[in-house]
Amino acid sequence: MSAEPGTVRPGGRTARVRTAVLRVAGDVLAEQGFAHLDLADVARRAEVGKTTVYRRWGSVTGLVADLLSDMAEQSLPRTETGSVLGDLRANAALVRRTLADPRQGALFRAVIAAGACDVRTAEALRKFYDVRVAEWAPCVEQGVARGELPAGTDPALVVRAVSAPLYYTLLTTGVAPDDAAADRAAEAAVAAAVAGVYVVTRRGDTGE
Amino acid sequence: MSAEPGTVRPGGRTARVRTAVLRVAGDVLAEQGFAHLDLADVARRAEVGKTTVYRRWGSVTGLVADLLSDMAEQSLPRTETGSVLGDLRANAALVRRTLADPRQGALFRAVIAAGACDVRTAEALRKFYDVRVAEWAPCVEQGVARGELPAGTDPALVVRAVSAPLYYTLLTTGVAPDDAAADRAAEAAVAAAVAGVYVVTRRGDTGE
Repeated sequence: MSAEPGTVRPGGRTARVRTAVLRVAGDVLAEQGFAHLDLADVARRAEVGKTTVYRRWGSVTGLVADLLSDMAEQSLPRTETGSVLGDLRANAALVRRTLADPRQGALFRAVIAAGACDVRTAEALRKFYDVRVAEWAPCVEQGVARGELPAGTDPALVVRAVSAPLYYTLLTTGVAPDDAAADRAAEAAVAAAVAGVYVVTRRGDTGE
Repeated sequence: MSAEPGTVRPGGRTARVRTAVLRVAGDVLAEQGFAHLDLADVARRAEVGKTTVYRRWGSVTGLVADLLSDMAEQSLPRTETGSVLGDLRANAALVRRTLADPRQGALFRAVIAAGACDVRTAEALRKFYDVRVAEWAPCVEQGVARGELPAGTDPALVVRAVSAPLYYTLLTTGVAPDDAAADRAAEAAVAAAVAGVYVVTRRGDTGE
């Protein structure tokens, strides 16, 4: 978070205001969607002055961007199990749990939906996933170092390959993926990585 | 489409009305999103009587459901190249082209976004993807019959695995996948299928 001068004390008033406002924003997004997010309403529900909310977040998209930044900060660190398959299974299980959680799953669907019609939210989403991918990339790098995966394997492509089928299922069917789907996502990513599908040979070929 | 009695003549007035209305609905979704879809406005832009539109589609979600049904009907048939990798590469290229097309890509993002907050749209989306998966499933079945993939491979899981990374990229980054991403999606699905990841051994384990 970008702390304002004089507000670095953890748990200070500014931090408490942010926590309360982001909590309400997340609730509104999960329960009603992006279209129902309104700064004055969020201020009222969070019991925070309207002026404070307008001054700090400026707009609904500014609020959603900060919520995504907070979600990236709060998200769990990677698991290290000693094998790339074990690590990516843990990653898939974490993604599945998040998407299957009623509040979190609805929140992600709402934010992704908002990203479809709002450029600033799309940019905030990209940053969120960049943080998540960077957190888990070392599992793939270690897999390469251990000789489990071919040299040149692009860590970001592998990490994104684990998440892709889980998000795809939720977004196109409305049904959260189950445990079997999570295991399959990790196994498929590793099988494809072992086969060399994510070895990047051309410069700039990391567009996924 | 469910033709009304006396309206089965292809190209007849009812068909022309449907074509005009769905065209405008798609334009509005692609350009402005679900929140801006309004039956009276669609009727005006399609130069069709408001009463006709209300009687035939009933609601905005009814209109979107019919649009998705039409998109499923209009979508291209599968390609048969003689190998499962060739077939799935053709599938991935088709999905990529659709998502990279400015109108179609925006339309899919809008409809998926709408599915996040509307149950009927989510159901219509599921049906759309069921049709697409059923169209391409025989490519996987033939791959199994030719001995390219293990017996028991679930065709729907493989076809969905091809689409997943392409949709995931568009929905979480706002950037359409490129040709390299499409090839990688097909190659990854085949590599995982060859490794047995999509072999379904337990009954009911097709929840993805």
